[in-house]
Amino acid sequence: MAHATAVSPLAPKSYPDLPEVEGVRFATAEAGIRYKGRTDVMLALLAKGTQVAGVFTKSKCPSAPVDWCRANLKGGKARALVVNSGNANAFTGKVGAKSAKMTAQIAAKATAAPMAEIFLASTGVIGEPLDATKFNGVMGDLVAQAAPGGLLEAAKAIMTTDTYPKVATARAKIGGVEVIINGMAKGAGMIAPDMATMLSYVFTDAPIASKALQAMLSKSVEGSFNSITVDSDTSTSDTLMVFATGAAAKRGAPLIKDPKDKRLVAFKKALDTVLLDLSHQVVRDGEGCRKFVEITVEGAANAAAAKRIGLSIANSPLVKTAIAGEDANWGRIVAAVGKAGEKADRDKLAIWFGDFRVAHKGLRDQTYDESKTSAYMKGEKIDIRVDVGTGGRGTATVWTCDLTKEYVAINGDYRS
Amino acid sequence: MAHATAVSPLAPKSYPDLPEVEGVRFATAEAGIRYKGRTDVMLALLAKGTQVAGVFTKSKCPSAPVDWCRANLKGGKARALVVNSGNANAFTGKVGAKSAKMTAQIAAKATAAPMAEIFLASTGVIGEPLDATKFNGVMGDLVAQAAPGGLLEAAKAIMTTDTYPKVATARAKIGGVEVIINGMAKGAGMIAPDMATMLSYVFTDAPIASKALQAMLSKSVEGSFNSITVDSDTSTSDTLMVFATGAAAKRGAPLIKDPKDKRLVAFKKALDTVLLDLSHQVVRDGEGCRKFVEITVEGAANAAAAKRIGLSIANSPLVKTAIAGEDANWGRIVAAVGKAGEKADRDKLAIWFGDFRVAHKGLRDQTYDESKTSAYMKGEKIDIRVDVGTGGRGTATVWTCDLTKEYVAINGDYRS
Repeated sequence: MAHATAVSPLAPKSYPDLPEVEGVRFATAEAGIRYKGRTDVMLALLAKGTQVAGVFTKSKCPSAPVDWCRANLKGGKARALVVNSGNANAFTGKVGAKSAKMTAQIAAKATAAPMAEIFLASTGVIGEPLDATKFNGVMGDLVAQAAPGGLLEAAKAIMTTDTYPKVATARAKIGGVEVIINGMAKGAGMIAPDMATMLSYVFTDAPIASKALQAMLSKSVEGSFNSITVDSDTSTSDTLMVFATGAAAKRGAPLIKDPKDKRLVAFKKALDTVLLDLSHQVVRDGEGCRKFVEITVEGAANAAAAKRIGLSIANSPLVKTAIAGEDANWGRIVAAVGKAGEKADRDKLAIWFGDFRVAHKGLRDQTYDESKTSAYMKGEKIDIRVDVGTGGRGTATVWTCDLTKEYVAINGDYRS
Repeated sequence: MAHATAVSPLAPKSYPDLPEVEGVRFATAEAGIRYKGRTDVMLALLAKGTQVAGVFTKSKCPSAPVDWCRANLKGGKARALVVNSGNANAFTGKVGAKSAKMTAQIAAKATAAPMAEIFLASTGVIGEPLDATKFNGVMGDLVAQAAPGGLLEAAKAIMTTDTYPKVATARAKIGGVEVIINGMAKGAGMIAPDMATMLSYVFTDAPIASKALQAMLSKSVEGSFNSITVDSDTSTSDTLMVFATGAAAKRGAPLIKDPKDKRLVAFKKALDTVLLDLSHQVVRDGEGCRKFVEITVEGAANAAAAKRIGLSIANSPLVKTAIAGEDANWGRIVAAVGKAGEKADRDKLAIWFGDFRVAHKGLRDQTYDESKTSAYMKGEKIDIRVDVGTGGRGTATVWTCDLTKEYVAINGDYRS
């Protein structure tokens, strides 16, 4: 099993200071699920009454922990989150559901919390039974050792093929009282034999009821995690959850139940910031990537059409290999626009790489300076803008990375 | 511009003997569109009254020649086909339509045929104006030299990044009289800077009216050219046309106007064979490919669902890189089934590589012999079969190739 060990060249240069979120405590342990000499399980203990929201993979073959979380989410409350790496408990048949249940039982017993308020995730090998009895040996210690401030260590414990842990933080005021939003994520790295999971968890001390939290999360995810793609492959286990402990109420923050409440404006913005930051970090850890690519589509019939066109460009192997080759290949972008199936006016299309307009009114821009554009393409961040020419006001931005030989090596050469 | 020069390892080992189709004559020439020292234009002269059918790219940004052919197809008759390589006349704005028209004018004058019966295609660089005046210098000679039997040379003249010319032939009886179906194709090779076109032409002496021909073609293409994928990228210029000269009528073949006519049964089968053969040859010339992959999906809700699931597997970079790595990675296949968005029963899924069942009832097959499966994966042809477990009778087969580092090199390294 050949892991990519070098940190992605697109990794953030430093980590933010992470303030503690009151009502959340973290612990990590080595349960020996698959790896040796590293942590592979994290526990987040949540204050009683913590509100929860979540969004999950759209896969028709979701993992057992996804089924478990979806069912528990209906209650709206959370007391503990248990995540392991090394085994995804995905495509494990009916055995998988039993493993998930046993994990929750062990956690419920150790935390004295109801099973219905335990949330789970597993990431790592798929198709192998997860031996949940391994959690027996560590759960007591995890509960005993749980402490505020362990977010970065928790992020490390759930890494699989990530080359760096992913965390983000922001602050916002609700009713004049400052609240904190911390987040962590692991990427969609899919190395030998079948790692395949994007996980992200966000913790806040804001007092927000689960339904309002869910409404905000469902909206925010559209512009962040649902607007990124590394290779168009969707995992069976993708999970994004937000936990709101409500501890800021003690400092005077009002409890908010309506997602349209005006007092949530700053919080929404901060949540968007954290999710966008984390989702970009996932892309920046895409296998073999060397370029971070932002694609903005304008002039589409509507926002949904713009997003579909954007993702069609972002998922095009020919566009992605051209970017890896540092070529401003607008012809491939036109082909990707065309195949998206959305309205576009071929003879009004315009395309920019950075500030350089390379195509205009459906053909090569006569003023296009190849040497300047080539220099731009050598950069680490590539911005592509496409006006698809329908005259509509639909716009969307999506993010991806380039497709390099290293991607193929990481995903195809691991047996050698 | 670094072209892949070696012939694909998956190329056919020999060419079939190609019988002549009465009523079709071919000629090729060096018009100097872009290449030096090779032919880059082909003319097919068709007997008066030749019936024509066609299917074209679904791209919303089609090339100028595609627009031209779509308009002329309404007449149902064809006298000449002109195809050039070196320049795709795609994304050339309003200038492109003028170039197409001028090409047709030159051909119409030289052949004394109406403009409405001239069909065109261009393949090669996109976004560069096509200088149609170059056809002036060669069209007279092309008409003068046109002769039966030049199909293979014609196939060579329209190659861009193909590593071998693609031809196929079959015979069938209509009303007891033997007719011939010959076909040629060029692949979807998309090398420097933006080659992006799949073209295929089929010629028959069968007397079949254009509407019946169109109905048969539209049906046949679903199981052949619309069931293949190299990299999920759709060209702006994809074109497949069938020309029926009707010459076999002189030998007693009946004129058929109804696509449901029972006398067409054998012809349909032969047409299917030719299109399937040509479409497979296109996949076998996929950039950097080393494995030809056949994916059969069973147990889906219906045939359309099965095909969508099949293409989701065939287009998954993770599945394709695993095949390049000779790994029977069924976990990635499950992920690809799940992301297709079609109904599947996770806990009833079964997957075979060749005759080796690797997954059963939603988890790893306990009888699965890894060494035998590994040996199978070293082969050149890989068959994958997936029962998605809904109990439905929907089934479909699609074809693709593996995704190798050479693909990325060919499509990303051409500047170096």
